Amino acid sequence: MANSQYQYVKNFERENFLLPETYIVVRVDGRGFHRFSKFYNFEKPNDVRALNVINKAAEGVFRSVQDIFMAYGDSDEYSFAFDRSSNLFERREAKLVSTVVSTFTAHYISAWASQFDEPLKPEHLPTFDGRAVCYPNLKVLRDYFAWRQVDCHINNLYNTTFWTLVLKGGLSTQEAEQRLCGTLSSDKNEILFSEFGINYNNESEMFKKGTTIVWEEPLVGTGQSGEEPSARQVQRMAKKRSKIALQLLHVDIIRDQFWGRFGPNLA
Amino acid sequence: MANSQYQYVKNFERENFLLPETYIVVRVDGRGFHRFSKFYNFEKPNDVRALNVINKAAEGVFRSVQDIFMAYGDSDEYSFAFDRSSNLFERREAKLVSTVVSTFTAHYISAWASQFDEPLKPEHLPTFDGRAVCYPNLKVLRDYFAWRQVDCHINNLYNTTFWTLVLKGGLSTQEAEQRLCGTLSSDKNEILFSEFGINYNNESEMFKKGTTIVWEEPLVGTGQSGEEPSARQVQRMAKKRSKIALQLLHVDIIRDQFWGRFGPNLA
Amino acid sequence: MANSQYQYVKNFERENFLLPETYIVVRVDGRGFHRFSKFYNFEKPNDVRALNVINKAAEGVFRSVQDIFMAYGDSDEYSFAFDRSSNLFERREAKLVSTVVSTFTAHYISAWASQFDEPLKPEHLPTFDGRAVCYPNLKVLRDYFAWRQVDCHINNLYNTTFWTLVLKGGLSTQEAEQRLCGTLSSDKNEILFSEFGINYNNESEMFKKGTTIVWEEPLVGTGQSGEEPSARQVQRMAKKRSKIALQLLHVDIIRDQFWGRFGPNLA
Amino acid sequence: MANSQYQYVKNFERENFLLPETYIVVRVDGRGFHRFSKFYNFEKPNDVRALNVINKAAEGVFRSVQDIFMAYGDSDEYSFAFDRSSNLFERREAKLVSTVVSTFTAHYISAWASQFDEPLKPEHLPTFDGRAVCYPNLKVLRDYFAWRQVDCHINNLYNTTFWTLVLKGGLSTQEAEQRLCGTLSSDKNEILFSEFGINYNNESEMFKKGTTIVWEEPLVGTGQSGEEPSARQVQRMAKKRSKIALQLLHVDIIRDQFWGRFGPNLA
Repeated sequence: MANSQYQYVKNFERENFLLPETYIVVRVDGRGFHRFSKFYNFEKPNDVRALNVINKAAEGVFRSVQDIFMAYGDSDEYSFAFDRSSNLFERREAKLVSTVVSTFTAHYISAWASQFDEPLKPEHLPTFDGRAVCYPNLKVLRDYFAWRQVDCHINNLYNTTFWTLVLKGGLSTQEAEQRLCGTLSSDKNEILFSEFGINYNNESEMFKKGTTIVWEEPLVGTGQSGEEPSARQVQRMAKKRSKIALQLLHVDIIRDQFWGRFGPNLA
Repeated sequence: MANSQYQYVKNFERENFLLPETYIVVRVDGRGFHRFSKFYNFEKPNDVRALNVINKAAEGVFRSVQDIFMAYGDSDEYSFAFDRSSNLFERREAKLVSTVVSTFTAHYISAWASQFDEPLKPEHLPTFDGRAVCYPNLKVLRDYFAWRQVDCHINNLYNTTFWTLVLKGGLSTQEAEQRLCGTLSSDKNEILFSEFGINYNNESEMFKKGTTIVWEEPLVGTGQSGEEPSARQVQRMAKKRSKIALQLLHVDIIRDQFWGRFGPNLA
Repeated sequence: MANSQYQYVKNFERENFLLPETYIVVRVDGRGFHRFSKFYNFEKPNDVRALNVINKAAEGVFRSVQDIFMAYGDSDEYSFAFDRSSNLFERREAKLVSTVVSTFTAHYISAWASQFDEPLKPEHLPTFDGRAVCYPNLKVLRDYFAWRQVDCHINNLYNTTFWTLVLKGGLSTQEAEQRLCGTLSSDKNEILFSEFGINYNNESEMFKKGTTIVWEEPLVGTGQSGEEPSARQVQRMAKKRSKIALQLLHVDIIRDQFWGRFGPNLA
Repeated sequence: MANSQYQYVKNFERENFLLPETYIVVRVDGRGFHRFSKFYNFEKPNDVRALNVINKAAEGVFRSVQDIFMAYGDSDEYSFAFDRSSNLFERREAKLVSTVVSTFTAHYISAWASQFDEPLKPEHLPTFDGRAVCYPNLKVLRDYFAWRQVDCHINNLYNTTFWTLVLKGGLSTQEAEQRLCGTLSSDKNEILFSEFGINYNNESEMFKKGTTIVWEEPLVGTGQSGEEPSARQVQRMAKKRSKIALQLLHVDIIRDQFWGRFGPNLA
């Protein structure tokens, strides 16, 4: 074969096979979304349209990539958890991460026009990076998602208070920053309530809790064969999935209740 | 900090820092492009519009991601070579691969409408996967690109003959496959010439040689500091880059001539 | 500092931090022990002296390296299981493997003279290689040890029958090999019993089951701080350990009974 | 096969194949040698017997492990450089590191009695850890060895001055430490010369430069086949090697001269 003299370069490729029987989480993060959100005039502190777009991107991943049982996201990030027994792409890290990130990016762009009037400009396209992490048991997996949801809460309380001080209180962004420096959660709640009559508890659940995606009914028989599925299998699976509804929840995923209903089958 | 009890989950993250002083190549591959190209009726054996789109996607990566000095692609794949001394993202594999793949995907979709009348459908979006490979010296890097270009040649000669037999020769795809089974390059050239009056050498250079992208003039001072560049630096670099032209070449990248002119500065 | 111009070479070092909260198993294997055992005239099929030596080597590792709760070995191999929560050497793979292998080698050589009259020759020293594997939960850890113990059983039944055919039955090694080709366990038991009056069940438990090492009483407070322990801590720990007895068991480690008594505390 | 139900645990094993066409360096370090050298009353600042032992350990590795072309060591550490094209153990990191460390440990213990009257005690055995690092070109490989030799020089000048102050100057170790705090090389040279009449340049080359080991004549045809060599091949190679002399040099390995004579063949 004419190509054989060069094929040795394939020997330089290295695969990282993620440890079996662990929960793989792929987290996708917006790149430079501070600038991106400014450029497209996202509303502050939360832009419902942007959250709708990113939720649709996550739904796209959920439906296109096998073996995901749960996703959680807020702001410009999303985390996808794979079945502990998944053997998708033989658990090759680069393949898993790049496939999720590419699919996420494609659906984000595809969903944009449904929410924003201003079209995306080629010089200001949304892009994301990603990483995969293995969690060896349900406790640490739950703690991972708790970490993300507490982070969402902390950021949202800060941003809500910050932008209320700026937009309703007339402070400059610098003044608002100084005002909040060193404050506790209780202080921020107090500022919102006593100065602006805002009860933070009444804010949108999507803003406060982020968005969790699960299947309406569990999917069985998803490909754990380790083989890359054939084109036909992919189509059949896609068809099957397109009929099963996804649930977008804005609920507490720290306490037991959520996991009792939607957690992975540990049998 | 309220979040601290869960933050330990970050300890499960693992980074693969790619070996310094090696050439990093990130290769991006279309996922399921056989089906994708069928769905959007790509012309056979080569669709100039699709190649224009993928070349624009590669240009987008070239301009947005630092430290790339060369890219080569054909069909539904593209390879990007980084400066040997690049310290982009501290050479973290997942970050490098996911950033390139996401940027590539975004620009592919963004460029679509300039070449195709039919808009992309949400159920049939183009997605890509990617991988990074380290090549420790210029010889193996050159052999890597030679491997890809020979592969392009082999595939294109096969596809050109196959589709000529089908479209002009009236064979079914199965008959064409059987006809070509076991043939050498010389046989395929002969079929094209004697049966269809086609001299393969006169085919489009882009089809035969693929597309190589290099800077019109070398960029100096691109970020090798290991720090993720600030928003301002990214903007300044982007502006600088947007003024420097890229060259899209369809030339032999196996022999010395190309590397003498466009190869990395080894000083 | 005079050395600073070269210190950049440290940046080429890569650490593999083994996934937290998984059971690390380091397995040590004899290198070229077929030749080694021949050179020193090990008795066939089992040499009690050699097993005593390797068991002492394992005890040496057990006492010198922190956070090991169980070891299992037979023939020329030994596996050491670390506490799931161990942070020894920050879980750096090369450090863990090399330390265990070096300590094992040192104690093997040190124990030799207590069992063998013939001293070790510099051209024929015992050496070992090693590897670390992570097992994410108790089920797979148990299956790992079951795998090793079944392997011990299969090999020992084969070797016992093989060497009985040779030493008592007068067959050549080649004839014995042919005789056993394709036989089942039941066949081998039958050969031993009907031809040589040997009931395999009455063979030494150490030969049939291998050797399992556990602490007489559980050690608490072993270093999980991630810091390399200070010289003083190491000494104190060594003193403490030197007083606690180790148990060498030759028991079934596949069934529940062993794990109920000696398995890791899962609290 | 009776063992098959458990064999899946092998899927948890991960191999790190070190990047081809790079120089692999395995560095071995004494574990707790401060305590070890105290226990066996090593002479200060340098114990010729201990250096003879460690040099013999390195020779043992050099002769037993294939594809090493150079070693360098001082104090309680040694570095072994493998041919760039070596495919020993398929370049599997754990196998390479553990084999070198085990062989080193075995030969260290084996050589002990030739230099020390006091035999090794089982509670105070010498052990080592190890790591492998890949260097992609000759420049960084040379800088690696320069780093180690400069380190040897800095430590030896310090230790020589420190122990002269203690042993001949009558200072306590604490006083000597304070005296040297913040001193430059020139200061230490001056202390040695003006206070004790010692010209550091006249100290033993082995102390000042460490020990470099190379083959007397280059070995050809060492196994780069990627296969683990057969017992017969190992024996033949060992025999061949046992006839070729090793050179132990105490020379500058920073400047070009050494590399011109003993550096790897780059053809």
